[in-house]
Amino acid sequence: MADFLTSGDDTTLVERVMSATRSRIAARTLAPGAKLPSIRQCAETMQVSKSTVVEAYDRLAAEGIIQSRRGSGFYVSGHTQPLSLDNIGPRLDRAIDPLWISRQSLEMGDEFLKPGCGWLPASWMPNDSLRRALRTLARGNDDILTDYGSPLGAIALRRLLARRMCEHDVEAGPDQIMLTGSGTQAIDLLCRFLIEPGDTVLVDDPCYFNFHALLRAHRAKVVSVPYTPTGPDIDQFAKALTEHRPRLYVTNSAIHNPTGASLSSVVAHRLLKLAEQHDIIIIEDDIFADFEEEPSPRLAAFDGLERVVRIGSFSKTLSASIRCGYIAARPDWIEGLTALKIATAFGSGRLAGELLASVLTDGTYRKHVAGLRTRLATAMSRTITRLRDTGLTPWLEPKAGMFVWCRLPDGLDATALARKGLAENVIFAPGNAFSLSQSAGGYLRFNVAQSADPRIFRILEDAIAQTGR
Amino acid sequence: MADFLTSGDDTTLVERVMSATRSRIAARTLAPGAKLPSIRQCAETMQVSKSTVVEAYDRLAAEGIIQSRRGSGFYVSGHTQPLSLDNIGPRLDRAIDPLWISRQSLEMGDEFLKPGCGWLPASWMPNDSLRRALRTLARGNDDILTDYGSPLGAIALRRLLARRMCEHDVEAGPDQIMLTGSGTQAIDLLCRFLIEPGDTVLVDDPCYFNFHALLRAHRAKVVSVPYTPTGPDIDQFAKALTEHRPRLYVTNSAIHNPTGASLSSVVAHRLLKLAEQHDIIIIEDDIFADFEEEPSPRLAAFDGLERVVRIGSFSKTLSASIRCGYIAARPDWIEGLTALKIATAFGSGRLAGELLASVLTDGTYRKHVAGLRTRLATAMSRTITRLRDTGLTPWLEPKAGMFVWCRLPDGLDATALARKGLAENVIFAPGNAFSLSQSAGGYLRFNVAQSADPRIFRILEDAIAQTGR
Repeated sequence: MADFLTSGDDTTLVERVMSATRSRIAARTLAPGAKLPSIRQCAETMQVSKSTVVEAYDRLAAEGIIQSRRGSGFYVSGHTQPLSLDNIGPRLDRAIDPLWISRQSLEMGDEFLKPGCGWLPASWMPNDSLRRALRTLARGNDDILTDYGSPLGAIALRRLLARRMCEHDVEAGPDQIMLTGSGTQAIDLLCRFLIEPGDTVLVDDPCYFNFHALLRAHRAKVVSVPYTPTGPDIDQFAKALTEHRPRLYVTNSAIHNPTGASLSSVVAHRLLKLAEQHDIIIIEDDIFADFEEEPSPRLAAFDGLERVVRIGSFSKTLSASIRCGYIAARPDWIEGLTALKIATAFGSGRLAGELLASVLTDGTYRKHVAGLRTRLATAMSRTITRLRDTGLTPWLEPKAGMFVWCRLPDGLDATALARKGLAENVIFAPGNAFSLSQSAGGYLRFNVAQSADPRIFRILEDAIAQTGR
Repeated sequence: MADFLTSGDDTTLVERVMSATRSRIAARTLAPGAKLPSIRQCAETMQVSKSTVVEAYDRLAAEGIIQSRRGSGFYVSGHTQPLSLDNIGPRLDRAIDPLWISRQSLEMGDEFLKPGCGWLPASWMPNDSLRRALRTLARGNDDILTDYGSPLGAIALRRLLARRMCEHDVEAGPDQIMLTGSGTQAIDLLCRFLIEPGDTVLVDDPCYFNFHALLRAHRAKVVSVPYTPTGPDIDQFAKALTEHRPRLYVTNSAIHNPTGASLSSVVAHRLLKLAEQHDIIIIEDDIFADFEEEPSPRLAAFDGLERVVRIGSFSKTLSASIRCGYIAARPDWIEGLTALKIATAFGSGRLAGELLASVLTDGTYRKHVAGLRTRLATAMSRTITRLRDTGLTPWLEPKAGMFVWCRLPDGLDATALARKGLAENVIFAPGNAFSLSQSAGGYLRFNVAQSADPRIFRILEDAIAQTGR
């Protein structure tokens, strides 16, 4: 075949036309459905005979990459190449593809250990309270069981959220709060509302890996700023604002994912000053809020929801099975966000909202969360000790939450280790999945609530042993 | 002030520069965050002095429309103009703005009559069965109550869906079915997967009004084809394919919304032949499937899920409070759709999936649906009689479902009538909300399950009386 293909000038010319066309399609210079240059145009631009182009186009058509439409020429095949998130961002090693990690954690059953996953074990959740709430709802009104509910979502839950936000000095009335299908969907709606394809968005490096996947889906240009133990590196942040003129910055202020760090007041102040100078909007993902013993500074509190939007959910402390998140934003934005929510999801689940409101008001939630904090604190110090004994170094000792961001001994590659772990039914979260700059190849994120099993540490020890230390 | 503004040549020149800039920003020729032409450039292009441009830019900055950034010039203000669906499509009379109708129906309380809404009364839903399912779940495992669940969604429900689709001759294994947060979210994910901003999408005229809102959110170019009692007008359909080269066609085959018509086998066959010739994808929204007595032709069945994607939900026959929809598509598309779902929503609600599976398997669902059909049939003939007596003319008598698409007597405008209705706490669905061509100004969509109250007909009678008939 190779011989045949290179057996004559014509063939190589045909090949040239084919590969040139292929690369234009891959680069989306020719988008799906787009019309190809006419035979003549192509022959002229590529300096080949028309018959060469005809053969090239015919072969590409045979491959299904392009199609001829009677009388109207050739077109890039449409539905053979729908959006693939891989094609938007850089193609990553599967083990550090953010979506792949999520899928492993979500798909793999109980035979897998998941020190890399982002949630607490089911047994840690307020199951009795949830069961009570389900029974209460079973006695509730028909409309709660079957109606769409209001566009903003269950008022009972929005009132609660408004009250609890006051405790973090974030003043937002129930009408400034919109319930969503999840915390992720909250950020997704905001991206739709605030950015255009091609806009630049700033994230932390490292940051929650699904931010990368989500922003890819929005075709955003993503730029990252190194994260320090007190927040993003302010000089780098300022530099990025001037160089890349982003529209948006997405971050966790408190118990940052994956580092467990929390924003300091000084950094919060400087960050907001810069945000104002450059007129960017900030999405503050506060999903870990309830794990904090001592509330740390919140951008939403400093800013008063002017250019900061706060989002959150109940997946981490209450239930991820009952999907519900929220957006707290400027009143004038809630209108547009509600329209987008109706257009793209119609509702956010009245049942979910009522269930959560009932769990949050049955008088046991604070006790449950207090219990979680103690339990996490114990797991945190125990895990850190074991990681240290194994030879890993925590980047810092988080004040709260479920994550430790850990440096591996030199010479150990987190991605390779994650692959090895998977072979032994252990799902690790390798650093570069969190790092746009791919500078965290020596780090792993550990979930202290999922890291009790000795097998996890045995895999680490073996890997270290093999490096000859 | 006006005097001052027009008091000198300079001022009018400044005004000219300002308005020129304003319109470029409004037209997004200058997008949010974009750099304005330099003072010199602008002075040259507009043939004015630099000082005039300086003053114009300063005033626009004072208005907050643009901003100066030290050393780097002027930029269009970013966050002052987030996405508004109004700005994407043509601005509509509020009463026929699809989103506005949805919001009225969703927001207004029981003091409102809703002959224009798209769902059944709560009392028609299988409430006992739902309560049973909640109590069953309250005895279920912890992980069902709290875990995210698998990316595709509850397997029990996907197995059920696969079996029930066979009854419509749609062959799709559980792994070809992905659960979503709603039927709307199913279409939304598919649009993300299949189209780019600016792509052309074909819809029926009339069609479900939220298709217009959803496609606006995707910045799609929407083209419509007249709908006939047996499906879209095939000649117009063919013409639209050649003229506009759409990527996608979104439709209901069975019990079409709003007309209540159903696709004929002949039209289905021709439509699919055209779809293949022009390589377009079809989303078949089958949300009303269970209302049919006699299953009518399905594009998904004819096509075998090659280029047709079937979506549906349980909002119409079971519960809209438990949000859950589904996508049945080619196996090779499910992978990419799952990635998109994780990136933009993370999960679709394990609890919702388990609840619905339990309701669908408790042995009462078929009986419930049979009851709904009988009840709807009665309401349908009763409503049609009353509408006829009142002077309205059904476009056709639907074989099933909840909708009648009705022509008003000549001289009566549905939009005006909808506004009048709202003043009297009645929410109508005026025709042009469903019509891209705005050619349905003489039509209303009635929900026969919500049209029993005499007040509805009194408003119609009064309006007709006022036209002097």
